[in-house]
Parts: sequence; structure tokens; C-alpha cells
Amino acid sequence: MMKRLAILGSTGSIGQQTLEVVRAFPDRFQVVGLAAGRNIDSLATQIRQFHPRLVSFADEDRPVLPDLVKAILALVAGCHQVPMEEMAGHAEVDLVVVATSGKAGLSPSLAALKAGKSIALANKEALVMAGELITAEANQRGGEILPLDSEHSAIWQCLRGEAGGKEVARLLLTASGGPFLRRSGQQLAAVTAEEALEHPTWHMGRKVTIDSATLMNKGMEVIEAHWLFGIPLDSIEVVIHPESVVHSMVEFVDGSIKAQLGIPDMRLPIQYALSYPQRWPNPQLGRLDWKQVSSLSFEPVDMDRFPCLRLAIEAGGKGGTYPVVLSAADEVAVELFLSGDIGFLDIARVVAGSLERHQGTAHPTLEEIMAADAWARQVALEIGRKG
Amino acid sequence: MMKRLAILGSTGSIGQQTLEVVRAFPDRFQVVGLAAGRNIDSLATQIRQFHPRLVSFADEDRPVLPDLVKAILALVAGCHQVPMEEMAGHAEVDLVVVATSGKAGLSPSLAALKAGKSIALANKEALVMAGELITAEANQRGGEILPLDSEHSAIWQCLRGEAGGKEVARLLLTASGGPFLRRSGQQLAAVTAEEALEHPTWHMGRKVTIDSATLMNKGMEVIEAHWLFGIPLDSIEVVIHPESVVHSMVEFVDGSIKAQLGIPDMRLPIQYALSYPQRWPNPQLGRLDWKQVSSLSFEPVDMDRFPCLRLAIEAGGKGGTYPVVLSAADEVAVELFLSGDIGFLDIARVVAGSLERHQGTAHPTLEEIMAADAWARQVALEIGRKG
Repeated sequence: MMKRLAILGSTGSIGQQTLEVVRAFPDRFQVVGLAAGRNIDSLATQIRQFHPRLVSFADEDRPVLPDLVKAILALVAGCHQVPMEEMAGHAEVDLVVVATSGKAGLSPSLAALKAGKSIALANKEALVMAGELITAEANQRGGEILPLDSEHSAIWQCLRGEAGGKEVARLLLTASGGPFLRRSGQQLAAVTAEEALEHPTWHMGRKVTIDSATLMNKGMEVIEAHWLFGIPLDSIEVVIHPESVVHSMVEFVDGSIKAQLGIPDMRLPIQYALSYPQRWPNPQLGRLDWKQVSSLSFEPVDMDRFPCLRLAIEAGGKGGTYPVVLSAADEVAVELFLSGDIGFLDIARVVAGSLERHQGTAHPTLEEIMAADAWARQVALEIGRKG
Repeated sequence: MMKRLAILGSTGSIGQQTLEVVRAFPDRFQVVGLAAGRNIDSLATQIRQFHPRLVSFADEDRPVLPDLVKAILALVAGCHQVPMEEMAGHAEVDLVVVATSGKAGLSPSLAALKAGKSIALANKEALVMAGELITAEANQRGGEILPLDSEHSAIWQCLRGEAGGKEVARLLLTASGGPFLRRSGQQLAAVTAEEALEHPTWHMGRKVTIDSATLMNKGMEVIEAHWLFGIPLDSIEVVIHPESVVHSMVEFVDGSIKAQLGIPDMRLPIQYALSYPQRWPNPQLGRLDWKQVSSLSFEPVDMDRFPCLRLAIEAGGKGGTYPVVLSAADEVAVELFLSGDIGFLDIARVVAGSLERHQGTAHPTLEEIMAADAWARQVALEIGRKG
């Protein structure tokens, strides 16, 4: 039986790698929908290759010209344009891959889960901003949230067949530590955008790369893990593991620890989510070579040098709209850093300032989440520009 | 509901640690039967503490005196003596812990499985000598074979919830490498029994400790893993991991690897087998401290310096009575080494010579297995004494 996929954010890094996995198993998957934002050229190529019935390419900041829409839809007979939310909930879709970046992933994730569908989730913001809404929707309608992130996939694989919940003592989320693991606080203050964009292991988008360097990314992953696996935040620990071979671990109440390992290639966790509950051989994927690995190291994280991680865990602990503010303020701060307006350590300062000024709302609705997001963006911009 | 246990080999290292776990969970387990060999004093203490209804203390080499039998049975009202096989198949027993050493574990393992019971297996010889018979009996009557060994427990835990079989690419069995990992061939020739009895990590019986030093133990574990998990021998790889933190790993066909980690304490895998499918917190067990671990290393094994490993894998590959000869010849050779009659490297020579002279029988019956065992013991003694 073919799995029918909708891929939201198909032209981004995760979207493209998802399509690589799909291409390796032409008998297993049918691409029913493709949704992209800015990269219309790349979307057109994908449409010609995968012949989706549904496409989506509205970008909220910049609507696509009507002529271009016509040209794209003419590429494949019977193809028509729908909003992402409609694609996510469409009757012909079995699994929705949410690989959009930013808050754009939130609304289609909810739409898919409302329609009782499972989602393969790479978008961080969905769970960070609306973890409670998203998981409630999944629980109510029976859809599953399958993580695409290597860390969450590792935890998911380690929990496979286990009772989870009360039998889990701790989640051990590994972090490469980013390119500035060994820098002093003073050296961190001098980091430039160019330096920060060079990640040692993973090749990702600009926003995620900066978030990896500040460890904000890891902090958001802690919040995501909390929602994905129902584990309390104070039972989730970040462990620095520069080799990025162990993708994360689970410690059980009996003292046994399970770890998932592999080469750092996003297609591995992507394929696992798509093939789940099966595992398929894929000759295109490399294998871990023990003779190359030889040694794996682990160390505690220094939250004083990487305050974004602490801010994220604190915001996650407070819950409600605090993680929304964290996420929005971070997005603004990273943009200000990339444009050279603020320094590397100012990212944490902007986020911390925004969180301090925030009056949180518990159990927020989608509207309250969006309002907190808009509020935080404005406040973060103010704080950032004041310097 | 209480699990009713029979513990065979209760006074040995694994037996005692099993009873420690039982003692930690008085509401979960009832000890119905205890069987021991030579250590009658220790058995008497256990009988007073656990009040088993059934006891067994016949040692084939040295029957227990009738007066002593009477004195022991008088310790607990209603307690009576039965052969190990009868205890293993007794109606009041739910799970049989087979912690006897040597071939004495074989016959009660078969008796338990024939009665449709599950066995928690620490005895190597049962699967090495009679893997085909044992697993056929388990499959036919529905009993499970739950491994107690840390390596096999690790693999079992990693396979939990997985489809296994064709989805498994490789089992990666870790080995500490024993005390002589860094010795040259020349240095190995000079190893004495005293040196060999000091194992860096695990405290075990004398036979197992020597087998750990020659890596024969690891070779037998490869054969056991083959039978326990139905994985071809050439898909089982031994990886040297001196820290003994990763207890073993499973590589799946999609390139994902799962590992199980923990402190080197046999009570962990013992408790897992007893509590399975649940996991229970046990404050008596230590926990892995990441700040202490810091680094894990892996390296390939050198089969030229540790030929026993190669002999075991070859014998396992040939199947039939060859692993019987391997096991029996090794037992004789280790005894000769411990008594100072042969050198450390002669252990492999004796085993290799016995295997060379053997004319194997495919799919042997229990009688053929016992005959091959007796034959090999005689031949090994001859080869060993010739020097």
C-alpha cells in the first residue's frame, strides 16, 4: 500500500531531503501535495518530478503573481492550488510532512491533526508555541506526531516498545555544542554572523544554524521533547556530545539507558518517520563505521556561556505564552544578529528582556498565541534596537 | 500478581545477585524453588531466608550425604527435595532462572521449556551446546528465553518493539577485551592463572573469568546471540569497548543503531529479565553518571591474538556438535590452565585440536550432544597433557 504524502515546506532543506527519501522508494510513496514559500523555481521542478494533485505557494509576506500561479498549475494536468491548511487536512493525504520553518507550520499542523491525520514534524515552532493545543488535538483525534529531528527521532526509537511515562527517568538530549563550544564568554561576544553560519556537522537553514550556535535550538528541542513524549521538563537533560554520533538517549527507572546512534544525515530520521513502523534498507544512506568513530565523548553543558538554553528551559517550565515569546523574540534577535545590528550575546539579552516584560497567559488559544507572538516581535525589536 | 521463581544455581554469583533483586521486591516475587551444587552452607542460609517449597542439591560428582539432606529439609516446613528437572517443570513455577554453570544447565532448561515455561538464562552452555533443541522447544511450547547476560540483555532491550529478523543488519556485541587487551602474543604466552583471574570490570566465577581473558566467553556469546535472536552468525560482530558502559548494540537495515548502556552491574540485566515487560526503580542499583563517563571508545578485535573468539565463531558456523566440542574442550583446557598444566595460549591450542579431530553430527539429539561432550573432554585432556 502506498503512503500518500503532503509535504509542506518542500523546497527547504528538510523538504528536499524528504523528497530524496521518497525518490528512493517509488513504490512506497505517492506525493499528493507540495507546499513551498519563496522558492518558486525549485517548487516548479518538484511539481514536474512528483506530479502532485495539490500545490500551495502563498507566502504571507509576498503573494505569488497570478500569471506565475497559472504557469505552475499548467505544469501538471489536474493540479490545483489550495491553502496549506486545506492540503494538510485533505482526504487523499495519509501523512503530512511539516517541514516549513517558523510559525507558518503551526496552523497546517493543527489542520492535519484536526482531520485525524498523523504529521511528521520538523517544524520547531508548532510544539514550542502551541505544544498543548497540538498534543490535545492529536490525542483527541488519534493522529500521531512523528518527529523528524534527529534528537527526537532517537528518543522515539529508544522508547519504541517501552511503556514510557512513569518508566522513564530522564531524556538525555545530546547537543554537538555548536561551533563555539570551547569559546569563552568574551570570545562569544565577538562572534560574527559569518562565523556562526558555519556549523560543524549539520547543514541547515540560517535561522537554525544560529540557534544551534546559541543552543537556543537545543532549548526548543527540550520543550518539544516535553510535549512529544509527555516527560516533565526537569527530567530532560542536555548533554554535550561533540561527535554527533549518539543522537539522544533515554534513561529508564531501572537504570538502563538506551541510545540511538547513526551518521549525521537527516535522511535517516526522515526515512524512519516515513517508513514507520517498518525499517527499510536504503543504499543511498551511509553507515556508521566503527573504525572511524573510535571514541565518543560527553560533557555537561555550561548554561552561563549559553544562556539561551536556560531561557528556553525556563520559558518551557513557565508554560502558557512564555515559549511563544521565547520563539518570536529569538526569531527577531537572530535576524538582527544576521544583519549586523546586534552582537552574538545580544540574542540572549533580547530574548531575556522580552520574557521579563511578558505577562503570560496560561492555556492560550491560537488567537492568544498569535497575539503573544506579535507582541513579542515588537518588544524584541525595541530591545534589540536600543542596543 | 506475584511471579513464582525457581532459581537453579542459587549459590553462584548470578544466583546470589538474582536473590538480591528478589529481596528488593518482596511483593513481586515468591521463591518456589532453589537449586545449588557444592555450596550447601550458602543454600541452607537461602532456604531459611526465602522458604522455598522445593530444593535441589544433587551434584553429579559428589552426592550430598543423607543426614545433611534431612537437616536441610528440616529448615523449612513442607520443603522437599526434587531433581532440578522436576523443579524446572513444576506447576507452581512461573519463571525458571537458569544460573547453573556448565552443562548442568542444559537438561533443566529443556525441562522448563518442555513444560511451556519461560526461562531466564545465564547459563552459556545450554544455547552453545544445544541451541537448536532449546529454541525449537521454546518455539513449540511458547516459553520465552530471557537473557540475563548484560550483552544479550542489551540486544534484547534494543530489539524491544522492533520487528527484528530481516530489519536487523548486524548485532554489535561489545567486549571489554579482558585484562590482556594490550598484550602482545609473546606476553600472552606468559600469562599466569593468578593474573588471568583478575578481571577489570566484572566479578565472576573462575571459569567465566578465564573465558573472558581468552575472549572464548565472547565467542560463546556470539553463538548464544545467534540462537536467541535468530540472526545469522556472519551478521554478529564483536567490538572491543574497554569501558564496558555500552553493553551491546543493534544496527538496523536503515542504518540506525540502538545501544543499551548502564553501569557494569549484573543486577541490572537480572532485574530487567525478572520485571519484564515492566521496568522498576531499584534504589540499590547505582546509576550511570555522565560526568564520570566522559568518553567511550570502540575498536576492532584482533582475532590473531585472541584465537578462541575465531574458533568459537567457526564452530558456531559449522553448527551441529562442533559448538559442543568447543565448549567441552574449553572447559577442560581452562581447568588445565588453572591447575598450571598448560599455558594461556594452550587453551586455544587444545580447543582447536579437539575441533580438528571432531567428526560433527548435524541436528544432534540430546544423547548425541552428551556423547560429543564426553568425547571432546577426553580428547582435550589428551591434547592438553601432551603439551
